[in-house]
Amino acid sequence: MTSFPSKERLAHIVYESDDRASKNFDLGLLVLILLSVLVVILDSVREIHLNYGSLLYWLEWFFTIVFTLEYLLRIWLSNDRPGYIFGFYGIVDLLAILPTFLSLILVQSQYLMVVRALRFLRILRILKLPEYLREAALLASALKNSRAKIQIFVGSVLTIVLVMGSIMYIIEGPENGYTSIPRAMYWAIVTLTTVGYGDISPNTDLGQFMASIIMLLGYAIIAVPTGIVTSEMTFAKSKTEAAGEHTLKICKTCRL
Amino acid sequence: MTSFPSKERLAHIVYESDDRASKNFDLGLLVLILLSVLVVILDSVREIHLNYGSLLYWLEWFFTIVFTLEYLLRIWLSNDRPGYIFGFYGIVDLLAILPTFLSLILVQSQYLMVVRALRFLRILRILKLPEYLREAALLASALKNSRAKIQIFVGSVLTIVLVMGSIMYIIEGPENGYTSIPRAMYWAIVTLTTVGYGDISPNTDLGQFMASIIMLLGYAIIAVPTGIVTSEMTFAKSKTEAAGEHTLKICKTCRL
Amino acid sequence: MTSFPSKERLAHIVYESDDRASKNFDLGLLVLILLSVLVVILDSVREIHLNYGSLLYWLEWFFTIVFTLEYLLRIWLSNDRPGYIFGFYGIVDLLAILPTFLSLILVQSQYLMVVRALRFLRILRILKLPEYLREAALLASALKNSRAKIQIFVGSVLTIVLVMGSIMYIIEGPENGYTSIPRAMYWAIVTLTTVGYGDISPNTDLGQFMASIIMLLGYAIIAVPTGIVTSEMTFAKSKTEAAGEHTLKICKTCRL
Amino acid sequence: MTSFPSKERLAHIVYESDDRASKNFDLGLLVLILLSVLVVILDSVREIHLNYGSLLYWLEWFFTIVFTLEYLLRIWLSNDRPGYIFGFYGIVDLLAILPTFLSLILVQSQYLMVVRALRFLRILRILKLPEYLREAALLASALKNSRAKIQIFVGSVLTIVLVMGSIMYIIEGPENGYTSIPRAMYWAIVTLTTVGYGDISPNTDLGQFMASIIMLLGYAIIAVPTGIVTSEMTFAKSKTEAAGEHTLKICKTCRL
Repeated sequence: MTSFPSKERLAHIVYESDDRASKNFDLGLLVLILLSVLVVILDSVREIHLNYGSLLYWLEWFFTIVFTLEYLLRIWLSNDRPGYIFGFYGIVDLLAILPTFLSLILVQSQYLMVVRALRFLRILRILKLPEYLREAALLASALKNSRAKIQIFVGSVLTIVLVMGSIMYIIEGPENGYTSIPRAMYWAIVTLTTVGYGDISPNTDLGQFMASIIMLLGYAIIAVPTGIVTSEMTFAKSKTEAAGEHTLKICKTCRL
Repeated sequence: MTSFPSKERLAHIVYESDDRASKNFDLGLLVLILLSVLVVILDSVREIHLNYGSLLYWLEWFFTIVFTLEYLLRIWLSNDRPGYIFGFYGIVDLLAILPTFLSLILVQSQYLMVVRALRFLRILRILKLPEYLREAALLASALKNSRAKIQIFVGSVLTIVLVMGSIMYIIEGPENGYTSIPRAMYWAIVTLTTVGYGDISPNTDLGQFMASIIMLLGYAIIAVPTGIVTSEMTFAKSKTEAAGEHTLKICKTCRL
Repeated sequence: MTSFPSKERLAHIVYESDDRASKNFDLGLLVLILLSVLVVILDSVREIHLNYGSLLYWLEWFFTIVFTLEYLLRIWLSNDRPGYIFGFYGIVDLLAILPTFLSLILVQSQYLMVVRALRFLRILRILKLPEYLREAALLASALKNSRAKIQIFVGSVLTIVLVMGSIMYIIEGPENGYTSIPRAMYWAIVTLTTVGYGDISPNTDLGQFMASIIMLLGYAIIAVPTGIVTSEMTFAKSKTEAAGEHTLKICKTCRL
Repeated sequence: MTSFPSKERLAHIVYESDDRASKNFDLGLLVLILLSVLVVILDSVREIHLNYGSLLYWLEWFFTIVFTLEYLLRIWLSNDRPGYIFGFYGIVDLLAILPTFLSLILVQSQYLMVVRALRFLRILRILKLPEYLREAALLASALKNSRAKIQIFVGSVLTIVLVMGSIMYIIEGPENGYTSIPRAMYWAIVTLTTVGYGDISPNTDLGQFMASIIMLLGYAIIAVPTGIVTSEMTFAKSKTEAAGEHTLKICKTCRL
C-alpha cells in the first residue's frame, strides 16, 4: 500500500485526473501555481519587496525547485518526449522555471522575473476538464461559423481607425497631442472602444465634431460582435436542447 | 376594533404582506428606511452637516429608536428566534441600529456612521414579492445553466488582466505610473472594462500598441456575458411562452 | 382654386398629414423648427454671438412670430381647445415662443434662451407617423413585459451605487476627492456605467481594489438590459413573422 | 506559354479572382496597398521622417508609379470606362495617386499626404469575395428591416444630446468648460456613449446629478442597437438554417 507506485501509475496520476490520487495531484499543483504567481505579484510592490524581499526570494526558489522536479518527472513519464518538450505545455512549464535559474547568471534580471507570471497559464492544463472543453469547443465553433461576419467587423474597425486617425492627425495636429498617425490611430481605438482615457482629446471645434461621429459609430458598432456571439449562442443552445435526452445519454456512456 | 391585536395578528402584519394592515406596515417601513438612508447621505455633505447637523442627529436617533423597537418586536414575534437573529435579515437589522448606539461609546465613530447606509439592504425584505422572486429565480437558473461559460469568461478576463498587467509593468515601468504589478492589473481592468479613467495611461509607443490590443480584446469580450445572458433569457422566455396558460393556472393555485 | 381654404380644410392641413398640402405644411414646419434650434445653438457660441448677434436676434424674432401665428392658428382650429392648450404639445408649443417675449421684460434672460432649445421636441408632433407609432408601441410593450426584470436591474444598480459609494467614501475620503457620499455615488455611477471621466479616481490600494470589483460588476451588469431588450425584440419579431400575411392585411384595411 | 496575354485574359486577371493568375494579381496588389499605407503611417512619425525620410520618399514614388500604371491599365481594360472612372472604385484609385503628383506642384502638401491613407479603401475591391458580399447583404437587409427602430433610436439619441447639452450649458456654464451649446452637446455625446474623456466634466452638484442621469440613460440605451442587430441576426440565421440545403444548391448554381 505504501510501496512506491509504478511508472504507469505515476504517469496516470500526473497526466490524468479521474481518480483521487490524480485529482489531489492537480489540486496541489493548482495551489502551488497560484501561490507562486502571488509571490511574483507581491514582489513587484516596492514596500513588500523592501520588507519581505528575502522571504519571497526563498519562497521563489522553493517553487522553482518543485516545478523543476515536476518538469523532469513529466519528461520522464511522457510517452512522446519531443512532443511534450516542444509543445505548448512543455514551453510554458519551462518558462515557469527558467527565469529563476537565469537570474543567477544575469545581473539585470528584473524583466525575467515578470515572465514567471506566465506560470498562470499552467492552470490551463489543470482546467482541461471535459465540461470546459465542450463549452470551449461550442464557443470556437460558434466563432468559426461567424468567421465572415467577424472578418467584416474587424476590417471595418481597422478601416475606421486608420481613416479617422489620419483625418484627426490633419485636423488636430501635433500641437493637440496627435503627434503622428500611429498616435492618432491609438486615440481612435481609445475612442471607438469607448475607453476614453482623455490623455489625448480633441480641442478644436471640427475635431470635436469628428470625434462625436467616431463615438456614435463606436456605440453602434459594439452591437455587431454582441449580435454575432448572441445569435450563435442562442442557435447552439436551441440545437443542444432539441437534441435533448439523446445528448445526455451519449454523455453518460462516453464520459464526455 | 380598536383593541390591541393578538400576537398572531401582529406576526402576520410584520412578516406577511397580503392584506391592508401588513401592506401599510411594509409601506411605512419602506418610507422610514429610505428617509433614514437619506439622512446618512445628507449628513456626509460638509455644508449640510455644518448647518443642519443637530437636526439630522435627532432624526437619526428617532430612526434608530423606531428600528430598535421593530427589531425587538421581530425577535418577540419570530417562531425561530436564533434563525432570525443569526440569519441574513437579522444581522442587517442589527447593523442598522448598532452604529448609532456605538457612537455614544466610541469617539472615532465616523466610519460606523456609513455602516448605517447598509440599512438600504433592509428594503430587500419588503421587496420579497412573488413576482420578483420568480424573476430572480429565473435569472439565477439562467446563470446556473451558463456556469461553465461564465467560469471560462471570468478565467479569460483574469488571465488577460494578469498577463497584460505584467507585460505593461515591464514595458511602461514605474516612471509612467505602473509602479507595481497590482497597479498595472488595476490599469488592465480599467482598460478592459472600457472605463478608462486616464489616471494611469500608456506613454511609450509599445505600451500604446499593447493597450490598443487589450482595448480591442475588451471590446470583443464584452459580447460574451451579453451573449450568455441574452441566450438564456430568450430560451427561458420561449419555454415560459410555450408552457403558456398552464403555468398561469399553477401560479394562481399555489400563490407563487 | 386660389380662394382661401375653409376652416375644415385648414384644420386638416395643420393637424393631419395624408395629402400633399398637409405634408408640405409639416415639411415647412420641420425646416423652421430645425433652423430655429440651429439659431439657438449658434447664438450660444461666443464668437458667433459677437459677430452675427444682431442677425440671429432678428431671425429669432422671425421664428417666434411664425410660431406664435401657428400657435394661435392651432388654438383656433382645435376641436378641444383646453385639451390642446394644457396638453403636452400645447405646452411645448407655448414654451417655444414664451422665452423670446419674456426676454423683452426680463433683464437676465440668458437662461430663458436655452429653453427655446426645447423647440426640438416639437418635431415629435411631425414624426407622429403610423410606422413610428407602431414601433414605439412594440418597444413600449416589450419594456412593459420586462417590467419586473427592469425593476430588479434598476434596484440592483441603485443598491450597488449606494453601498459602493458609501464604502469608497470611507476608504478614500475627502482628501482623494470623495468629499461626500453623494459625490462618491456620482463616482460609482461614472464607474459602473464605464464612462470613467477620471475627475475622481481611487488613489489608495484598497480603493483601487474595490474600484476593480465595481468595474467588473458593471461589465457583467451591462449584459442584463441588453438581454432584456434583445429577448423581447426577438420574441416580438418571431410573433410578427408568425402572424405574417394576416398582419399586413389588417394593416392595409385599418391604415395603421 | 510565355507569350504576352490577350486583352481579354488581362481583363480577367485584373477584374476577376477565380483562377491562379488573377488571385496572384490580387494578392500582389493587396501587399502593395498595405505597404504603401504603412509608408504613409511611418512617414508621419517625426523620428522616422527625420532618419528615413528620403527612403520613404522614393518608396512613395515607387508605389505611386505602380498604382498609376495599374490605374491606366484598368481604364484601358474596362468595358464601361466612364462608369469606372467616375464610380466609387475609380475615384478611390485616383485619390491614391493624385496627392503624390500634386506634391510636386504645391508647397504645403502636408495635408495631401494623408489623403493617401485612403488607399486603404482600395482593399475593399480585393475583398469583393462572394462570401463577404453575402454576409454584407445579410447585414444590410437586417438593418433595412430595422429602419424604423434605428430612426427612433437615432432620434432619441439626438434629442437627449440636444436637450441635455442645453440644460448642462445653463447649469455648469462657461466657467466649468461648457463654453457653448455645441461644446455641451459634444460633452453629452462623450458621456452618453460612455467614452468619458474627462476633458470636460461637471463640477457642480446639480451638474453631477444631471450627468448621472444621462450616464444611466446611456447605459440603458446601448441595449437598443444591440437588441436590433442581435434579433435581426438571430432571425436571419434561423431562416438560413431552415432553408438549409436548398440555399446551398442555389448558391452553387448561380455562383453567388
